[in-house]
Amino acid sequence: MPRNRLTTQEYLDGIVSNNRTILSQAITLIESKRKEDTIIANDLLSKITQLESNSLRIGITGVPGVGKSTFIDTFGKFLTSKGKKVAVLSIDPSSQRTKGSILGDKTRMAQLSTDELAFIRPSPSGSTLGGVANKTRESLLLCEAAGYDVIIVETVGVGQSEVAAKNMVDFFLLLMLAGGGDELQGIKRGIMETADAIAINKADGDFVKAAKKAKVDYQNALHLFPPNENSWQPTVTTCSAVEKMGIDKIWETIESFERLVKGNGYFSKNRIDQNVHWFHELLNTRVLEKLLTNQKAKEQIQLKIENIEKGIEDPSTAVSEILDIIF
Amino acid sequence: MPRNRLTTQEYLDGIVSNNRTILSQAITLIESKRKEDTIIANDLLSKITQLESNSLRIGITGVPGVGKSTFIDTFGKFLTSKGKKVAVLSIDPSSQRTKGSILGDKTRMAQLSTDELAFIRPSPSGSTLGGVANKTRESLLLCEAAGYDVIIVETVGVGQSEVAAKNMVDFFLLLMLAGGGDELQGIKRGIMETADAIAINKADGDFVKAAKKAKVDYQNALHLFPPNENSWQPTVTTCSAVEKMGIDKIWETIESFERLVKGNGYFSKNRIDQNVHWFHELLNTRVLEKLLTNQKAKEQIQLKIENIEKGIEDPSTAVSEILDIIF
Repeated sequence: MPRNRLTTQEYLDGIVSNNRTILSQAITLIESKRKEDTIIANDLLSKITQLESNSLRIGITGVPGVGKSTFIDTFGKFLTSKGKKVAVLSIDPSSQRTKGSILGDKTRMAQLSTDELAFIRPSPSGSTLGGVANKTRESLLLCEAAGYDVIIVETVGVGQSEVAAKNMVDFFLLLMLAGGGDELQGIKRGIMETADAIAINKADGDFVKAAKKAKVDYQNALHLFPPNENSWQPTVTTCSAVEKMGIDKIWETIESFERLVKGNGYFSKNRIDQNVHWFHELLNTRVLEKLLTNQKAKEQIQLKIENIEKGIEDPSTAVSEILDIIF
Repeated sequence: MPRNRLTTQEYLDGIVSNNRTILSQAITLIESKRKEDTIIANDLLSKITQLESNSLRIGITGVPGVGKSTFIDTFGKFLTSKGKKVAVLSIDPSSQRTKGSILGDKTRMAQLSTDELAFIRPSPSGSTLGGVANKTRESLLLCEAAGYDVIIVETVGVGQSEVAAKNMVDFFLLLMLAGGGDELQGIKRGIMETADAIAINKADGDFVKAAKKAKVDYQNALHLFPPNENSWQPTVTTCSAVEKMGIDKIWETIESFERLVKGNGYFSKNRIDQNVHWFHELLNTRVLEKLLTNQKAKEQIQLKIENIEKGIEDPSTAVSEILDIIF
């Protein structure tokens, strides 16, 4: 064997006994594209999904500059101080920063990364978002099997990644800054309406007043949004991750949310819907992966995309030609 | 030949000379799942995408009860009175109402359906949204080839259909009612942020005051949203389709929008992005269609979804098993 691969049972035992080294190795196994790894990975996944878990999955998004790392560092420490085990995963295929290296995240979350109760895993390196998101989702399941109570899925909030995150979490938190002007630049439209809560971060020093005003404005705006299927009314709070203010309030909000949706049945309904959605996504991704082992098809797809971008070919014809190559 | 099928050239000539019977037949051809039809349809599509068109594609969405049919009837007549040729297409896979019958739409849009300058086509009957949306998009291209100036794509605003619509139009209009309470029930979250304009309909009689207040509220809320990539600031207007009030204002808004995005290059950039997106969607849909001619695979997929819904199978394992059947 080319490297230190374990058996499914060894991975499973290691994960369940919360051996963090084995948990890390199992995530690496899942991210691997080697056929031998995939077989064990699928076997492992089907075994761990039979385990019970009581975790809460929290998505956190916000544009660069909003203080996401500091927030997760502070929020994570708040949770571990209550004895909760916290895992942090991120979906960020565009980022080269943390690619293949844990160092980036260790620096980003200085307190949490040395906490015994915390497990931080950077983005998998992968070329397509669908692939990255799938791996993140599977990593999430491994963390749950290892007994983590809260799984934080972090996204950058500027592309498709937060849609992927929204589809794998129970609660979705949007971090914002006061002002509503330039700092909003880049955030994807539609996110605000999907948030279960908005936290206006950096509500400290000279910004306290602006943050309070922003809070009122956003609260008014949220009331105009269509009601959620889960009958939760999204909230707006202010916080300062640096000064550790308002973090407890956010956790109380999340706990209220959890009580509500577990009471009205939405919690499990949503997880089932997410699983069905994930099934379709995975099926698409993996069918195309299987077919595109054909180098010629891969090259043709790239060529067709370039032609479409140049406006010299239409999508229907392009797809028909690709199908002729594949089949 | 089982029925009256034309050659590609005959379809093309008929469409370009705006023979509405042939346009209708061509759309039926495109919606057909018969292999012989698909070959001609693809041939036709690759030919018409080489034609020049100066059309504007407008998406209109809103929940049932918002007065969408009456609005499109009035708005369409307003446009034809200016000499514009108007086509109305709809994406609504859930609706059985108009399935395979034009009668529904003739009743829904009484004035427009008898207008020589208008062409109304109900939803294609189809089982999957992806499929329906693809057919709607291809029908849109046929209408453009037939010289229609404005293509209206109508959706119900309660599911995935408005995302599909948003991805094929230049301008997206959301119809709302005043009040912000129960009438919002059912509309999908995230829509409001994707709208280029919101029109508060039924601003007549006793509702004028409430509509004006709603307008101000929504305007304030929209300012909190992230700016659009196209640098357009979404607008809010009031209108009454029944009393034909405010319709001219909405058209002026759309014209301003068109000037802005044609000036700053976003118009063509957006259409190219939409084409690339459509290429990926089509590739997914058609690859799966090809593979799922296998009856056993189809049945297994249905079974797997049921198992996932029951919580007795996980998506990864389910997909692996489906792949084993397909390949």
